[in-house]
Amino acid sequence: MIKYPNKIKKDVKIQSVKERNYSKANLGDNFEKKLNDTNSYYLSKGIASIYKKPTPVQVVRVDYPSRNKARISEAYYKTPSTTDYNGIYKGYHIDFEAKCCHNTSFSFQHIFKHQIEHLMTIDKMGGIAFLIIEFPLHNETFLLPAKDLYQKYLESLNGGRKSISYKTFKEEAYLIKTSYNPTIDYLNVVDILIDKIESK
Amino acid sequence: MIKYPNKIKKDVKIQSVKERNYSKANLGDNFEKKLNDTNSYYLSKGIASIYKKPTPVQVVRVDYPSRNKARISEAYYKTPSTTDYNGIYKGYHIDFEAKCCHNTSFSFQHIFKHQIEHLMTIDKMGGIAFLIIEFPLHNETFLLPAKDLYQKYLESLNGGRKSISYKTFKEEAYLIKTSYNPTIDYLNVVDILIDKIESK
Repeated sequence: MIKYPNKIKKDVKIQSVKERNYSKANLGDNFEKKLNDTNSYYLSKGIASIYKKPTPVQVVRVDYPSRNKARISEAYYKTPSTTDYNGIYKGYHIDFEAKCCHNTSFSFQHIFKHQIEHLMTIDKMGGIAFLIIEFPLHNETFLLPAKDLYQKYLESLNGGRKSISYKTFKEEAYLIKTSYNPTIDYLNVVDILIDKIESK
Repeated sequence: MIKYPNKIKKDVKIQSVKERNYSKANLGDNFEKKLNDTNSYYLSKGIASIYKKPTPVQVVRVDYPSRNKARISEAYYKTPSTTDYNGIYKGYHIDFEAKCCHNTSFSFQHIFKHQIEHLMTIDKMGGIAFLIIEFPLHNETFLLPAKDLYQKYLESLNGGRKSISYKTFKEEAYLIKTSYNPTIDYLNVVDILIDKIESK
């Protein structure tokens, strides 16, 4: 790095643009950053410990340019087994998938069947599982509990709509308050879900 | 793959050996497989949903040999933010780090300070956090709760031992029953920890 600072800088730039286009097509760089900032805020205040899982990569070839340095020279993005985020809040296991939707409806093509099923598994096991979805066109972000997502997914399999419209989110999901800090205060909505569980 | 089956097979073989040497030095391929099998068993029986997080990779360069195919051509292993495994069991958030120790004592050099702190955060927030450690020399696997690990870590900072001996694990940690299926039945020990929490 001391020898070729400009060259390396250029490499990094190439990556940040290209990788963004590929791997974050449905998440959105900015949305991911806002969620990470939110989670950092929650952690710093001792409120919750929630992290984004690393993007899974299938490594095919590793070189060793120097003794203790491993350089991956061939790898491919893999389909994630589960969802993007999980952690703990008020003793509850939290698990969610986050999507940024640039249209006016969210197609089930943009979430894997096994991810919806994973969210339902977490729900059944006593965790709190949901989808967070941002509509940049409307500047609004919603939280849809796993059960509701699953219900709509089943309907789509039985001849119903293959997507969930912005209007449906607006009417049936929880609007997340967004502000300066925390940026996307989704735990505010999770509190409502916890109240429902605990008042049963 | 149809055109060059042998060549591709060779590539895959090169990777599996090289990557193993690098990234799993402290986990152990076989141990990781046994834990994954155990977690698959728990999931298939509806007992728990616990997964290993993907190894974090810093992608530097991505090529596109064809339109929809992204090939990572330069990347590096990153330090994980948290621990290897987490999930849910009996409504509790579970979080642990797994290590395979080929010596007769486990040095604190083989676990990051921020990982020990992360386990303590989970513990304080009402989750169940611990270290699972395999000693292949003794063919024994132990579970050490986060609080005990942290206590010994603090002692190491204050002039105490910089490692935890096999003897200490034998005397103070929980021996995990290993069998055919599940291979490493650590939830059996987690049940004891849950009993302690719930009887308080």
